[in-house]
Amino acid sequence: MGMRLSVDPGLDPAGYTFRHDIRVRFAETDAMGIVHHSRYLPYLEEARVAYLRDIGHPYTAWQADGIESAVLECFVRYRQPLRFDEVLTVHTRLASATRTTFQMAYLVTVGEEVRATAVTVHGLTVQGRPVRLPAWLSEHVR
Amino acid sequence: MGMRLSVDPGLDPAGYTFRHDIRVRFAETDAMGIVHHSRYLPYLEEARVAYLRDIGHPYTAWQADGIESAVLECFVRYRQPLRFDEVLTVHTRLASATRTTFQMAYLVTVGEEVRATAVTVHGLTVQGRPVRLPAWLSEHVR
Amino acid sequence: MGMRLSVDPGLDPAGYTFRHDIRVRFAETDAMGIVHHSRYLPYLEEARVAYLRDIGHPYTAWQADGIESAVLECFVRYRQPLRFDEVLTVHTRLASATRTTFQMAYLVTVGEEVRATAVTVHGLTVQGRPVRLPAWLSEHVR
Amino acid sequence: MGMRLSVDPGLDPAGYTFRHDIRVRFAETDAMGIVHHSRYLPYLEEARVAYLRDIGHPYTAWQADGIESAVLECFVRYRQPLRFDEVLTVHTRLASATRTTFQMAYLVTVGEEVRATAVTVHGLTVQGRPVRLPAWLSEHVR
Repeated sequence: MGMRLSVDPGLDPAGYTFRHDIRVRFAETDAMGIVHHSRYLPYLEEARVAYLRDIGHPYTAWQADGIESAVLECFVRYRQPLRFDEVLTVHTRLASATRTTFQMAYLVTVGEEVRATAVTVHGLTVQGRPVRLPAWLSEHVR
Repeated sequence: MGMRLSVDPGLDPAGYTFRHDIRVRFAETDAMGIVHHSRYLPYLEEARVAYLRDIGHPYTAWQADGIESAVLECFVRYRQPLRFDEVLTVHTRLASATRTTFQMAYLVTVGEEVRATAVTVHGLTVQGRPVRLPAWLSEHVR
Repeated sequence: MGMRLSVDPGLDPAGYTFRHDIRVRFAETDAMGIVHHSRYLPYLEEARVAYLRDIGHPYTAWQADGIESAVLECFVRYRQPLRFDEVLTVHTRLASATRTTFQMAYLVTVGEEVRATAVTVHGLTVQGRPVRLPAWLSEHVR
Repeated sequence: MGMRLSVDPGLDPAGYTFRHDIRVRFAETDAMGIVHHSRYLPYLEEARVAYLRDIGHPYTAWQADGIESAVLECFVRYRQPLRFDEVLTVHTRLASATRTTFQMAYLVTVGEEVRATAVTVHGLTVQGRPVRLPAWLSEHVR
């Protein structure tokens, strides 16, 4: 299907460079008593924003430069459900970069238990047009 | 990454068996002025629920039988953004089925324009345990 | 508490000038098995947008004129829960208008049953500054 | 309109007994570039859950006892918008209690700036039926 997505997230937390904790809100659960599958994407986004802040390139600085990050693709594998009030850890790494797109890999755990893995593919745009990635991005690929 | 997801959604509406229209809510947009990427999953779900109703197996009847449908994987490719007040069409088909999982393929269009393609992989559970798919499901695979 | 909100929504559908139907999505339910209380506000918004389209002043036309509608206050009274797959009707009317703010009243029903009542208070802004309401708005007050 | 809501939240942080910080997610913004008005309710809920944990009566313990907390009414006054990546503080207090309902008051600030005030009214149910409030609740009213 012409997938750009090529990264294998991996189940070992040691393979990730950053971790970010989030507590599940009641509003994020559904009538099956678990976190709705659409609600994982804002968790990944929150972790991604925290990661960029951590490496000194906060997303608000990108915005100030007129750069927007478009999500081109996403993949989530739901392994075990998340429940209300659980504290999940999103392990994150910048997993690959070409001249115009980059891929982020995610491992979601609660304590020692793996709950999900995911990959998102991004491009950068200025005034709606794709632009080349800044040089610093590729230095962070792990 | 151990993906079950194997279906190619395809860009031709003729390859789908069901279509469902949804108008974008303002609440679904984000500060980039477009529909947030997490908001596509409830659109796909709404179309899936409408499809199951259309083929005479509404999800509420599944629930009455104690059957729940778990999302195991999802993949979305965002091709062109969706905007407030646009009416999108979710073209849907039941694209594959094994004894315990099935895959739904989606094409999202606005008029003639392709906006996204997607696949979701599902399993069925009774009291939290995976069960075999009902026989009627595989008859609908296209 | 300095509330602007002053309108009594009323329980009789005959007191409203517009109705709009919405089917509950699974994504809108929570772990209590009912629609989460935060999810009513997008329902009201969808009905408000449909109402403005119906009276010939679609919100997209406001946006084209650089006018934005800010929500200043909201009040919801939850009378009976909403559940997955129910089709709710949002009865709507423009209930009051001053020179700079207007109030919308809502009655949410499923069939003959009242599920909720609500009021939202709005102001209009151009480039972030409050502006006077257009003359046509007050003509629609009921 | 038969409002139960009677509490004046107040603009002075000193009038609240608990505070909880939340950073705005990008997914919570809308096409006006600010946090969508429906997204404040999950913030209030997160603060309420944190407050109950703080006073030694976590909501998960209520659930274990078969008690559910129903939102009966909500009121929000939006004073100044919230934006992406801002860290808001939700000041919270248990503001009143009758035998069957209680009211929570909220003040939302960013630094020294007031952004919103709100009140929610709650009842408790066991198996869907209203029950009397536990004695400890009224001891916390401020």
